[in-house]
Amino acid sequence: MRRRTMTVVVWVLLVLIVGNPLGAAEPTKSEALSSWNDGPSKKSIVDFVERVTRDGGPDYVKPEERIATFDHDGTLWAEQPMYFQIAFAMDRVRELAPKHPDWKTKQPFKAVLDRDIKALAALGETGFLKIIAVTHTGITTADFTKSVADWIATARHPRFDRLYTDLVYQPMLELLSFLRANEFKTFIVSGGGVEFMRVFTERVYGIPPEQVVGSSGVVQFKLPPDGKPVLLKEGKIDFVDDGPGKPVGINRFIGRRPIFAFGNSDGDQQMLEWTAAGSGARFMGLVHHTDAEREWAYDRKSYVGRLDKAWDEAVRRGWTVTNMKTDWKKVFPFQP
Amino acid sequence: MRRRTMTVVVWVLLVLIVGNPLGAAEPTKSEALSSWNDGPSKKSIVDFVERVTRDGGPDYVKPEERIATFDHDGTLWAEQPMYFQIAFAMDRVRELAPKHPDWKTKQPFKAVLDRDIKALAALGETGFLKIIAVTHTGITTADFTKSVADWIATARHPRFDRLYTDLVYQPMLELLSFLRANEFKTFIVSGGGVEFMRVFTERVYGIPPEQVVGSSGVVQFKLPPDGKPVLLKEGKIDFVDDGPGKPVGINRFIGRRPIFAFGNSDGDQQMLEWTAAGSGARFMGLVHHTDAEREWAYDRKSYVGRLDKAWDEAVRRGWTVTNMKTDWKKVFPFQP
Repeated sequence: MRRRTMTVVVWVLLVLIVGNPLGAAEPTKSEALSSWNDGPSKKSIVDFVERVTRDGGPDYVKPEERIATFDHDGTLWAEQPMYFQIAFAMDRVRELAPKHPDWKTKQPFKAVLDRDIKALAALGETGFLKIIAVTHTGITTADFTKSVADWIATARHPRFDRLYTDLVYQPMLELLSFLRANEFKTFIVSGGGVEFMRVFTERVYGIPPEQVVGSSGVVQFKLPPDGKPVLLKEGKIDFVDDGPGKPVGINRFIGRRPIFAFGNSDGDQQMLEWTAAGSGARFMGLVHHTDAEREWAYDRKSYVGRLDKAWDEAVRRGWTVTNMKTDWKKVFPFQP
Repeated sequence: MRRRTMTVVVWVLLVLIVGNPLGAAEPTKSEALSSWNDGPSKKSIVDFVERVTRDGGPDYVKPEERIATFDHDGTLWAEQPMYFQIAFAMDRVRELAPKHPDWKTKQPFKAVLDRDIKALAALGETGFLKIIAVTHTGITTADFTKSVADWIATARHPRFDRLYTDLVYQPMLELLSFLRANEFKTFIVSGGGVEFMRVFTERVYGIPPEQVVGSSGVVQFKLPPDGKPVLLKEGKIDFVDDGPGKPVGINRFIGRRPIFAFGNSDGDQQMLEWTAAGSGARFMGLVHHTDAEREWAYDRKSYVGRLDKAWDEAVRRGWTVTNMKTDWKKVFPFQP
């Protein structure tokens, strides 16, 4: 009993000094979603969370089963005028260019160095894969992490002249916090490179590396003669976490079916279908980019983040389609 | 201020009624390791945990970096007379046999049905892979999970006549709890099939599916005409999480280097090397099976769980080698 009394005293002091350390970190109530307008999207989110967390209710889900998966590009941060990881790769080509004088006349590197987007686009996927190969492979995981960390801390987005990590969506940050405060475990499930995202997801989204699922290349364990092992990123693609790859990645990395999933493009369609196919209450959401002024407006015909078939299915099945322009009071944290 | 006062009242009541809800779940002190004798193994574990959790100390590690990885077979549960997943596969062959009358005369199935271990061993890896193929592939992930769940709830170990999940090591269960109470995140990193282990790791070890890394086969997303998507396990091996595959699996699934790793065989050597190669305080441990009476005794010459090169390296580098016979008061929870 003496130990309990001590515990009480410590807790009372703690609570008086710093507030309740259990509940203070993240807001559990819907007012947490302060950048969401009171519209159908916010209502569908709040209603769903209330249903699955109501102890004894018909839709109650145990905390350990409250798995929420989020696409990354276009869902948690912007993806225009090109996926940010491609901007990283192009900057890295420029950084490496002094060691490769032949790149000045050799495609696709010439196009990158000349900032000739038209020529680059004409080189298509082959050109793109060559750029990924020289910027993402043939180095250790540690060196790759360092190159991403350096870039993400300094590179600036061409339109907003801000760090790329400033271009995260304030309403989605609030949604992640709201879900975690309601004992959801939040995951990123993205077509982007897993080792690229993991450099900053914990700091930016509160999502630790082990809760990030993404595309990856083959990695080899090497133990050089001096005895310090390294992991070497090789030039072979191992797993593409996009489209039908998303439920496969969820199965492989998480091993449970999400009850909540949010995406923004056709690459998220199978993740939403897989989420929807479970039993019990489910939430499926799509961000619809409708706001050319504060962000961008694009959908069925966009090369980046095309939203076409998944949109039709969402409408048909009553999934939540969030209209960026009308559902969000604010897009980026730095906007008024 | 009124809200804080309310919070205080609620906390005081909670603490009085049920004890401190933050600290009560798992014991943080070394007395938690009650099945460990006071010897070098227990001392090295407790010393390490105290060093990395001492706030402001030279070896302090932030909770989010406290990643602990455990091999499964032979480290958390037994692996004799054969890996338990092989016992599952053989039982499943017997279960499926009525639908395959040709198996009565066709190897390797005949050997399984005749319980002819010698013939089976003679068929080697080819025979083994055929058994895995018919028992682990060509079915949906949901059906496979069900077949494992049914088996693990009923199948009994030949020597102890107990459920296989009874053959977990009591001292390791205590170690997992002790680490989690000290804000470690515990992972399994095993050569076993990831979808096999995930069926029971949360219940048995308190390790949720998303913290289990293992070997896997290729899985395909299929959306049949009736519109209910499934994941189909195909006959192709995707990833072997053993030996040098363990640091690769750790990098792929966890994305952080462990500071604590425990194994029992040469298949764990690279995981321990990878753990050791990080900066700051590190713990590397091996279970040495020395107790033929309470469990089994095997090491350098064993076909299952061979401990040879990893043992030499552990001795050379001063890693912890746990002697089952002298370090553990009790092996299995059911033993006195």
